[in-house]
Amino acid sequence: MTASSHISATDFIRNLTLNSPSQVRLVPVQPSRGMLHPLGIEQVRIESGFWAEMQNLNSTAMIQHCEEWMERLGWIGNFDAVVDGRIVTERQGREFSDSDVYKLMEAMAWEIGRSGDGSLDSRFTALVGRIQPVQEADGYLNTRFGRAGQPPRYSDLEWGHELYCYGHLLQAAVARGRTRGLDDPFVDIARRAADHVCDTFGPDGILSVCGHAEVEVALVEFGRMTDQERYIDQAKLFVDRRGHGVLEDIEFGRAYYQDDEPIRDSVVLRGHSVRATYLAAGAIDLSIEQGDDELFSAVKQQMDATLARRTYITGGMGAHHEGESFGADFELPSDRAYAETCAGIGSMMTNYRLLLATGDMKYADVIERTLFNVLATSPAEDGRSFFYANTLHQREPGTVPAEDEVSARASSSMRAPWFAVSCCPTNVSRTVASLGAYVATSTADGVQVLQYAEGEIAAELSNGRVALRVETDYPNDGTIVVTVAKTIDHAWTIGLRVPAWAGESAILRVRGEEQRVQPGLVEVAGPFAVGEVIELELPLGVRVVRPDVRVDALRGQIAFERGPLVLCVESVDAPDVQKVDELRVAGAPMVDEYGVVRVPMISINTPERAWPYTDEISASPVGGASGVPLVPYFSWGNRGSSTMRVWIPTTDDVLGRA
Amino acid sequence: MTASSHISATDFIRNLTLNSPSQVRLVPVQPSRGMLHPLGIEQVRIESGFWAEMQNLNSTAMIQHCEEWMERLGWIGNFDAVVDGRIVTERQGREFSDSDVYKLMEAMAWEIGRSGDGSLDSRFTALVGRIQPVQEADGYLNTRFGRAGQPPRYSDLEWGHELYCYGHLLQAAVARGRTRGLDDPFVDIARRAADHVCDTFGPDGILSVCGHAEVEVALVEFGRMTDQERYIDQAKLFVDRRGHGVLEDIEFGRAYYQDDEPIRDSVVLRGHSVRATYLAAGAIDLSIEQGDDELFSAVKQQMDATLARRTYITGGMGAHHEGESFGADFELPSDRAYAETCAGIGSMMTNYRLLLATGDMKYADVIERTLFNVLATSPAEDGRSFFYANTLHQREPGTVPAEDEVSARASSSMRAPWFAVSCCPTNVSRTVASLGAYVATSTADGVQVLQYAEGEIAAELSNGRVALRVETDYPNDGTIVVTVAKTIDHAWTIGLRVPAWAGESAILRVRGEEQRVQPGLVEVAGPFAVGEVIELELPLGVRVVRPDVRVDALRGQIAFERGPLVLCVESVDAPDVQKVDELRVAGAPMVDEYGVVRVPMISINTPERAWPYTDEISASPVGGASGVPLVPYFSWGNRGSSTMRVWIPTTDDVLGRA
Repeated sequence: MTASSHISATDFIRNLTLNSPSQVRLVPVQPSRGMLHPLGIEQVRIESGFWAEMQNLNSTAMIQHCEEWMERLGWIGNFDAVVDGRIVTERQGREFSDSDVYKLMEAMAWEIGRSGDGSLDSRFTALVGRIQPVQEADGYLNTRFGRAGQPPRYSDLEWGHELYCYGHLLQAAVARGRTRGLDDPFVDIARRAADHVCDTFGPDGILSVCGHAEVEVALVEFGRMTDQERYIDQAKLFVDRRGHGVLEDIEFGRAYYQDDEPIRDSVVLRGHSVRATYLAAGAIDLSIEQGDDELFSAVKQQMDATLARRTYITGGMGAHHEGESFGADFELPSDRAYAETCAGIGSMMTNYRLLLATGDMKYADVIERTLFNVLATSPAEDGRSFFYANTLHQREPGTVPAEDEVSARASSSMRAPWFAVSCCPTNVSRTVASLGAYVATSTADGVQVLQYAEGEIAAELSNGRVALRVETDYPNDGTIVVTVAKTIDHAWTIGLRVPAWAGESAILRVRGEEQRVQPGLVEVAGPFAVGEVIELELPLGVRVVRPDVRVDALRGQIAFERGPLVLCVESVDAPDVQKVDELRVAGAPMVDEYGVVRVPMISINTPERAWPYTDEISASPVGGASGVPLVPYFSWGNRGSSTMRVWIPTTDDVLGRA
Repeated sequence: MTASSHISATDFIRNLTLNSPSQVRLVPVQPSRGMLHPLGIEQVRIESGFWAEMQNLNSTAMIQHCEEWMERLGWIGNFDAVVDGRIVTERQGREFSDSDVYKLMEAMAWEIGRSGDGSLDSRFTALVGRIQPVQEADGYLNTRFGRAGQPPRYSDLEWGHELYCYGHLLQAAVARGRTRGLDDPFVDIARRAADHVCDTFGPDGILSVCGHAEVEVALVEFGRMTDQERYIDQAKLFVDRRGHGVLEDIEFGRAYYQDDEPIRDSVVLRGHSVRATYLAAGAIDLSIEQGDDELFSAVKQQMDATLARRTYITGGMGAHHEGESFGADFELPSDRAYAETCAGIGSMMTNYRLLLATGDMKYADVIERTLFNVLATSPAEDGRSFFYANTLHQREPGTVPAEDEVSARASSSMRAPWFAVSCCPTNVSRTVASLGAYVATSTADGVQVLQYAEGEIAAELSNGRVALRVETDYPNDGTIVVTVAKTIDHAWTIGLRVPAWAGESAILRVRGEEQRVQPGLVEVAGPFAVGEVIELELPLGVRVVRPDVRVDALRGQIAFERGPLVLCVESVDAPDVQKVDELRVAGAPMVDEYGVVRVPMISINTPERAWPYTDEISASPVGGASGVPLVPYFSWGNRGSSTMRVWIPTTDDVLGRA
């Protein structure tokens, strides 16, 4: 393991700046200390452009879509069925369907906090009213277990997901509590559930963990919000128990649920990629709250190694459909990329926590990559269907599911309206609603703009309140104009992230001067006057990207990126070929007069043979195309069934390398 | 679909030569007609060399190993537990464990028939005595279903495998009946079971099929042996019902068990690769018995397309761990090759039936490839551990399971002594015991030697009995010397298969003349005198093989073959590198003075980077090796934990193409 680490093994966390209680903000994550401090959704307003449109789509379509589906399928109705005594015979959905109701509620709570939507608040309150009577006297809350005729409580920790469901309940309650205050009926439900978990799984309780990590990250945050060490201590018990074979061995092996080795001993993320990233996020939170440098350093190293060796160019994680898991180092097949949307969100959760702790811009780079190429890819343009898995290579045209069809989670379908296991749509929705938190951070004497979206950013620095106005059409345009909207009479800094992909080509214009700036955080020191402008220009030329030679699946192929966007070729744009697999890159990319990226390609003819392994090169070039358009990967599949490639072979296999 | 077909759509089967009843032989497959007629294990004696050693290993180790494991785990004891009334609480193993007892018994029956081993016959008889009392009055026989406290009979056709278990019971009874006569207690059990199946699943019965095809191929053969059309008609019902969505839709889709579309409408094998190949074998048998040209032609086309697009260089089938299924056309990743041993056997079963029907040597070529590179790969040199999946690329050194450890079926382990799902060891064993049947066939006036092994071949031609003696050290040596041991006074032919891999380089020496012969069946016309010699020399030079350009996973890589053997590089032979993935082919293969194939390779250095996709080539050559040894793929993993590759990258990715 040679992954770089700038973290000293001890005293890193103790030396981080403390957040004062007055700095508590409307954010999903509020570490007690860190290099950077999160700004809440009340401080970051995304007003127009790419992410504003996504938030608008969430507000006008996605949230309602998820709610309607879960009403229709009876997943919400399960709570009513408990009250009515019908649950044992009439329960609907998978064992973890409660969690999707909670994730929807988290989305609603952030959206209410962001937009103040009163009718959405009524719907939220109505849901609370249906859930509340299901909670038992001791705080237990689950529609699937524990009643006569149901499996007993905690009788199937491997697959039952009871603690996982509490995790999403607590995260939803964090959203509600931070946006509406702790004196809230839903926060009360969560508090009773959290107490129940501590009572039941404490040092003298059931000495095990949930097959699907999630309660850990939720307990820490709920503990932060309610100022209860007890919840954080319980998260520590869960984190430390896992990895000692407390769960049953299964066909996928205990690595599937990270119970194969203690997290402190692991060197890379492995097993089920959503479970792995949720656990990593919780472990980082825990390490920060408890000053556990060993744990922090171990998880940071695991994520660094995972980014270096087990991550797709899109930021997607999870190379195996089987077990929905990470593969071995550099095992990253495009056509079998699972890259579950939820794993992308789990990666963002983990990288956001690493960013706040370390201030290392590489983690903000990963978040940007994942936002644009995983999160944004999942929902269709109309917000009513979603990718669950995010392949990088569609060999055969997928099927478009019917509007009323429940899809298997990782079929060969295009985006689907709903899934039998439907974790992804609600996960996208809750993340989009709280997206403001990813945009910017503050320190005692500065603001850092990390993701670029048009809008306003406000922050309380140690010497007072400052505000910035950001104007940009990013990622369509590389120019970001930051104007000081409110300032203080003290020195303070404005930081702008220059992504690693900008190489040597980013330009900063400030106070009449222009200079090239290196990737990382570029800081301009004040004092500033209101109206003062800082301009960052990021290079939006098309970049040709080559894979590490250890990625067997990508040998002889190149990809194209533009700004933060990974591009792809989609068969609807290449009418001369049956499938995009017939295309070979034959020249350098160019941008046409309409701003479309075009790549010269040839098509090839491959004769049918009875056996595909001989001493001959089978294919021959048959025709050239002046330039096949590439489209942003996130947009693919919105024009009907098609084939698609991110990594495109060069002509090497038919013409030889020049 | 452009796969070639020399079969006319009608009247193909009707024009095939009929087998007369007197030609019934000790073979697993006895079609009533065909271009070639099988020779039984009483007519083909494999005496020494590669396959004799494998049969010896089966006789001295594998059969006993399987029996001991199934006694130890209680899978055989399940039958006793039924008799003792303990089964509901004490049943061991998976729902289909009965089938492995039957496959063991099939192996025993063929081995008894081959060797006349009396003590093995006693063990067989003892097993029959334990199974017989479990059969119910109506013929039902299964330890998992139907008793109070167990799921009802046929309540889970998707996953319950009851009909699958009957299939293996019937195939074992075919082995017993053909080697010991139909008046046998085990054949009686099977007959009662087959009658029960017809009674229960007939036109007025349960109108469904088993989730795992197998009973179809078994019913046809059992019908052939017992001369009962009823069983063959039942097979037809099963074959025709499948594909109409009679089974439940599942996460993998109905293609998993070939219930997504009728077999007559399919164009390629798909879904679970063992199920697909077993079904294909049964459908071919059925088509032959019922003169169903449409069905025959459809399945032949499916296998042709599968060989052209969905088969590994080893002959292995099944590119997905998930669903143990075929992938899309040309989706053949080496590292995630599932290539289950049982699917290789299923492929051999299907290709053997196509060979007998069409006489097309391409199917014998496939059988040879699969014999040497899948079947022979599975068992360890000591016959006491087995590969379940047969990867073509081991990235990380696998773990060697303990001698008493039951492994998950497709873990990252090396060969394992036994599996929770342990279909493969008994499948290898039954196939090895009946291997003689694959060696040669006859026609009215000729003998065809199809697989090369030292021993004797006898055949009844229309004008009398002939015999051949074969001497060869194949595949270590390419020379095959066929001597006429018994002849007749009429003209007859001796046919020898020249594999496609021989290209233009095979040499035939007969009656003092030497000539180059083309791939296919080379026939020498008699009459022959006893002692007359025909010599075939197959070229054993090392061949460099390139993949079809449509196989993304193999771009920039080449493989090496020698004779019928696929070669590989194993890390134990490359001590200068940590993993074989560091090696690049840098020159032409050579054979050293010890007969070892060596390939000049360089090792590369790939610096650690935080992100594996940039505009740079990351690797650089660091050292050359004079020649890294290659070993036959079947032998890999016998020298402890190692990394391994069949397809090896060239230096293109670090040096550019010459």
